[in-house]
Amino acid sequence: MAKELTSRSENYSQWYNDLVVKADLADNSAVRGCMVIKPYGYAIWEKIQAELDRMFKETGHVNAYFPLFIPKSFFSKEASHVEGFAKECAVVTHYRLMNDPNGKGIIVDPDAKLEEELIVRPTSETIIWSTYKTWIQSYRDLPLLINQWANVVRWEMRTRLFLRTTEFLWQEGHTAHATSQEALEETMRMVNVYATFAENFMAMPVIKGAKSANERFAGALETYTIEAMMQDGKALQSGTSHFLGQNFAKAFDVRFATKEGKEDFVWATSWGVSTRLMGALIMAHSDDNGLVLPPKLAPFQVVIVPIFNKAEQLDAISEKVDSIVAKLKVLGISVKYDDNDNKKPGWKFAEYELKGVPVRIAIGPRDLENGTVEVARRDTLEKQVVSMEGIELHIQQLLTDIQENIYNKALVFRNEMTTPVETYDEFKEVLLNKGGFISAHWDGTSETEQQIKDETKATIRCIPFDQVPEEGKCMYSGKPSKGRVLFALAY
Amino acid sequence: MAKELTSRSENYSQWYNDLVVKADLADNSAVRGCMVIKPYGYAIWEKIQAELDRMFKETGHVNAYFPLFIPKSFFSKEASHVEGFAKECAVVTHYRLMNDPNGKGIIVDPDAKLEEELIVRPTSETIIWSTYKTWIQSYRDLPLLINQWANVVRWEMRTRLFLRTTEFLWQEGHTAHATSQEALEETMRMVNVYATFAENFMAMPVIKGAKSANERFAGALETYTIEAMMQDGKALQSGTSHFLGQNFAKAFDVRFATKEGKEDFVWATSWGVSTRLMGALIMAHSDDNGLVLPPKLAPFQVVIVPIFNKAEQLDAISEKVDSIVAKLKVLGISVKYDDNDNKKPGWKFAEYELKGVPVRIAIGPRDLENGTVEVARRDTLEKQVVSMEGIELHIQQLLTDIQENIYNKALVFRNEMTTPVETYDEFKEVLLNKGGFISAHWDGTSETEQQIKDETKATIRCIPFDQVPEEGKCMYSGKPSKGRVLFALAY
Repeated sequence: MAKELTSRSENYSQWYNDLVVKADLADNSAVRGCMVIKPYGYAIWEKIQAELDRMFKETGHVNAYFPLFIPKSFFSKEASHVEGFAKECAVVTHYRLMNDPNGKGIIVDPDAKLEEELIVRPTSETIIWSTYKTWIQSYRDLPLLINQWANVVRWEMRTRLFLRTTEFLWQEGHTAHATSQEALEETMRMVNVYATFAENFMAMPVIKGAKSANERFAGALETYTIEAMMQDGKALQSGTSHFLGQNFAKAFDVRFATKEGKEDFVWATSWGVSTRLMGALIMAHSDDNGLVLPPKLAPFQVVIVPIFNKAEQLDAISEKVDSIVAKLKVLGISVKYDDNDNKKPGWKFAEYELKGVPVRIAIGPRDLENGTVEVARRDTLEKQVVSMEGIELHIQQLLTDIQENIYNKALVFRNEMTTPVETYDEFKEVLLNKGGFISAHWDGTSETEQQIKDETKATIRCIPFDQVPEEGKCMYSGKPSKGRVLFALAY
Repeated sequence: MAKELTSRSENYSQWYNDLVVKADLADNSAVRGCMVIKPYGYAIWEKIQAELDRMFKETGHVNAYFPLFIPKSFFSKEASHVEGFAKECAVVTHYRLMNDPNGKGIIVDPDAKLEEELIVRPTSETIIWSTYKTWIQSYRDLPLLINQWANVVRWEMRTRLFLRTTEFLWQEGHTAHATSQEALEETMRMVNVYATFAENFMAMPVIKGAKSANERFAGALETYTIEAMMQDGKALQSGTSHFLGQNFAKAFDVRFATKEGKEDFVWATSWGVSTRLMGALIMAHSDDNGLVLPPKLAPFQVVIVPIFNKAEQLDAISEKVDSIVAKLKVLGISVKYDDNDNKKPGWKFAEYELKGVPVRIAIGPRDLENGTVEVARRDTLEKQVVSMEGIELHIQQLLTDIQENIYNKALVFRNEMTTPVETYDEFKEVLLNKGGFISAHWDGTSETEQQIKDETKATIRCIPFDQVPEEGKCMYSGKPSKGRVLFALAY
């Protein structure tokens, strides 16, 4: 095979890094911690964006764009925000370069120092709420349901392509409401949108729930999350939706005249997903041969590879292929016909397996005689000889089957990797030898959670929305608990 | 009227600023020179993006994403690039904040100084060509046809919403080719794409041509441009496409093995349009009542306003409106039904005029009796009573007419505002009293161009592709010239 991957069992982390680079998804750049998203990876991100954007608009949101830079002083305004966050940031201090008077290239012009430093946005609550102050006067201006697609920067020390990069791409919704209840409903609506997207498009089952106080977003009263299980037994937080109460409205003095003629601070939410989803997508489904992409997010769903020795054979095959391509396109199926004669079919097979193309069709002279094609599905690697007659309907059904199959496979895996435990010893044993989600009783205190984290690195991923009420004892402190929460090691 | 605009004749510049803010397109932000693009303005930008993106993909391009930050040393690598450009930049020097030990908010951590400063990209040739070095080995890797949608920062001293802002949004195409000819063809292809977009979607006639050496992009051997004429007689450069030769390949040592087994440097182009197009769109068509939007870029093309006194009237009107909306949507026409009862019809009429909605439909009780509606078109402000029967086809035709009409109006205006002159006195007289494009003979030297600019502020906007060969004498130097070029004052 042209590009060999490390296997998952050998070194899961290396397998991931190899895959991202070799499947042409992303690359490290000349700037520490910043990635280049390559065209094939970006095409997947565009599909993710398009679908989420459609879902946001269907739920009444509009897009806008706010500045990249935030004055440093804004970060001090919301006390818990700055405490829990926003320290590892890129800081702009100067606004001009000049030729080095000593003739050694260019230097920063020392005279061009900013009076107040600007921070490259790590998230936009502060700049957006300083703007909302001028947009909101009355309950008639509410709700404001705004989303932004943007790049953000957090100066991460240890970076990994897609999962944790200094610069990343994301969307951040920032909504403003007249009542606490409306804002809470919005927070829930958006975590549900994320869950629907993850399950229906990424084919990735997720658990919806609330974060414990320790794991909440800095400045939030509630953080809802979707948590997914990766193949190495670690959890990946895939999207969060925050109920911010009146914290940012108070910090930026955003008040409104209520319907009843009083004055109140505005209620806020924010919610986001990022290019981290690419990492989740890769790790949820892929195997030792390469990517496995859900058909709904694949840049192209079908690749057709001709098998031939002579030019005349290729001509005859291409004629047939043209009609197949046309029929697939009518059904909205995206197809690439790879008739490049610099590469052999075997090389192409490996390459498209590596790139996770859901369905591969191969056609040779024998197939022309028989009126058949060979159809291979990426998820199971099964091959089948199929009649050309009605091939488009066969492929359409196959894509649906693949989308369902990889979801079901991930769901079975996650269920297997979810273990209820009763004691802390059991907890540590499962964490060490099996991993996955561990469902356990917890006394609800930050102290206990912190001690468990210090001792095992495991965190509470969420208090599931579908938690079953159940009297129990905290596995760590023995204190009473009313239900189980999910612990895991996490990305 | 709810929101009064300064008229164009009174103060064109103030009219523009008023319009951008009052029509909810953009706002100044808390950060000097950075704008907030508001939802209504962003919706227009999204339509611009969607259409351009489609055109780029149709011409074989794919999207990718490169880092926001560029190491300072990269700017020194291409000598003419750094000379002509890239001095007024935002410079990141630190990567961490900390609590002020004196308890006064947060400060920049002095220990977190970067070894090499990072520049927030003003354009991405350098970081992209440093990446292409690792992607290109052989002619088989070429051409690379990549585009990026991104934010960029240039530290402008005098800023104006959309026209010149410190941060702006744009797309930048960066392509790599095996031959000079291919790269030149690409440069031409993309300026043609921009012209087609400007004319067919923005309804804005443009002149295509080459920049003189003085006006070329820093690092380019050729810059092609599209130039539009604004209502105040000033030109606006609306998109540029650069032939970069082998300059960046040499600066970043990007070589490839040719088909003939030799080694050569790669040939480059870059091309971009930005949120500046929003400024062009606004200034090309709008009037003293507000925006005039071409139907193909309007966030919604039709607004329906009910005229009623009592709730029962509204019910009856709404029932009719629902069926009209449904019929319009089938034809792909976007409609807003504004049945908000907090605002009077007169207020709504003024508001949607201000926002440039191409067609307004009003329906009252009398209309219900007569089976009619009142249709008003934004471009001419004409009103007409039309039968509800087949209204959707009437509106469809009307939108086509409006799109054509505003294009033709702008074309007539531009033709009127294009003046051939023979002498420098005549030139200065036209520049002072009429403005617009001035078509004149020029001797082709940078010195003459610079002197004319120093004396009059006018620049050569372009050497039109459709220049008629014509023997003449330079209006300034009297030296021989082979054709006329276009001068103007410009944004």
